[in-house]
Amino acid sequence: MDDKLVKEIVDDLKLRQERADKPVPVGVSNRHVHFTKEDFKAVFGADAEPVLYRQLRQPGFYACNEMVTVEGPRGTIKNVRMIGPYRTYTQVEISVADSRVLGLEPPIRDSGKLENSPGIKITGPKGTITLKNGVILSKRHIHFHPKDAGVFKIKDGEHARVRCGAGTDRETIFERILCRVSEKFALELHLDVEEANAAGLKNDDAAYMV
Amino acid sequence: MDDKLVKEIVDDLKLRQERADKPVPVGVSNRHVHFTKEDFKAVFGADAEPVLYRQLRQPGFYACNEMVTVEGPRGTIKNVRMIGPYRTYTQVEISVADSRVLGLEPPIRDSGKLENSPGIKITGPKGTITLKNGVILSKRHIHFHPKDAGVFKIKDGEHARVRCGAGTDRETIFERILCRVSEKFALELHLDVEEANAAGLKNDDAAYMV
Repeated sequence: MDDKLVKEIVDDLKLRQERADKPVPVGVSNRHVHFTKEDFKAVFGADAEPVLYRQLRQPGFYACNEMVTVEGPRGTIKNVRMIGPYRTYTQVEISVADSRVLGLEPPIRDSGKLENSPGIKITGPKGTITLKNGVILSKRHIHFHPKDAGVFKIKDGEHARVRCGAGTDRETIFERILCRVSEKFALELHLDVEEANAAGLKNDDAAYMV
Repeated sequence: MDDKLVKEIVDDLKLRQERADKPVPVGVSNRHVHFTKEDFKAVFGADAEPVLYRQLRQPGFYACNEMVTVEGPRGTIKNVRMIGPYRTYTQVEISVADSRVLGLEPPIRDSGKLENSPGIKITGPKGTITLKNGVILSKRHIHFHPKDAGVFKIKDGEHARVRCGAGTDRETIFERILCRVSEKFALELHLDVEEANAAGLKNDDAAYMV
């Protein structure tokens, strides 16, 4: 056999084994909204500021007390929670089931990539705004701190696959997961509620790169 | 190398290739209820009979006009459609999201295996029944006609894995799918709505055994 090919296969198997040794914690994202400061003030009032409800695993990110109602052409969904801090864009992340309730067909996107995504009406206690675009289905992704990326031998922008729920009746392999590497990140696989339920996962369960 | 091992590996690769050539159509199951004749009459009236709403892919199975409200300890869900014909057991199949709305923790089960599953209250236009058990999350499964089982070299009761949404951002491999073989069946992969949405699937999309 070809020695070079054998070495490639063995190296690949070793890398898979190394990756499979280290769990990636799962973070389940329910529908939520990110606000610019301006849009936040428009729906919660000029004097309002986001109030911490729960710290998230990603450093500096937090679920807020503030919730809004979103309205699409077919229906509305209440109690959509804000995730802080402010962003440079206002964005609503929903599930496929939510998109049917609202009557929208959002694309699957990495956060902030909003071109040609549908708009939506957002109502808070002090006002309503209408976005021209900003509604997406979140693209599955893993946040890596550079030190985790080193352990997993992953580069920013690569795609990965993970095995979830090994040994259970909902064991699932998610393919084409975007890997994002930043000093600001903590290791975490972000899935939406339907992806998590399909694989029988809860927050902080372990997924494994394969 | 060991000739026997090589033959096993080659045979396995050939089998995978043969299976991968033939698509398995996806059937997406929304929440639904199966009724015994007795329970049906109790909620729809002694003179009622199930009325065809839509024929399903499985021969003789059909969605009915009849819908009920189901009530658990935390909440209720309206417009849960009956799937006919009558069965020898009354059973409610829901999603994980539904189970949170209702406040139940149903097990993942093959249809009809209801021991130690939670109960539920079912209300129709003519009455209410309270099941002692019968609420499940459906275990992923593929229906095979024996002639399909022959093509795929699958035996009743085996488990399989399928790749869905190949090349899309929601590409997913579902593991541990129960294979059921019967003269009464037509080839179909049954997933619930959350599994289908997680993999970006609609009714009649193609899945591939891998």
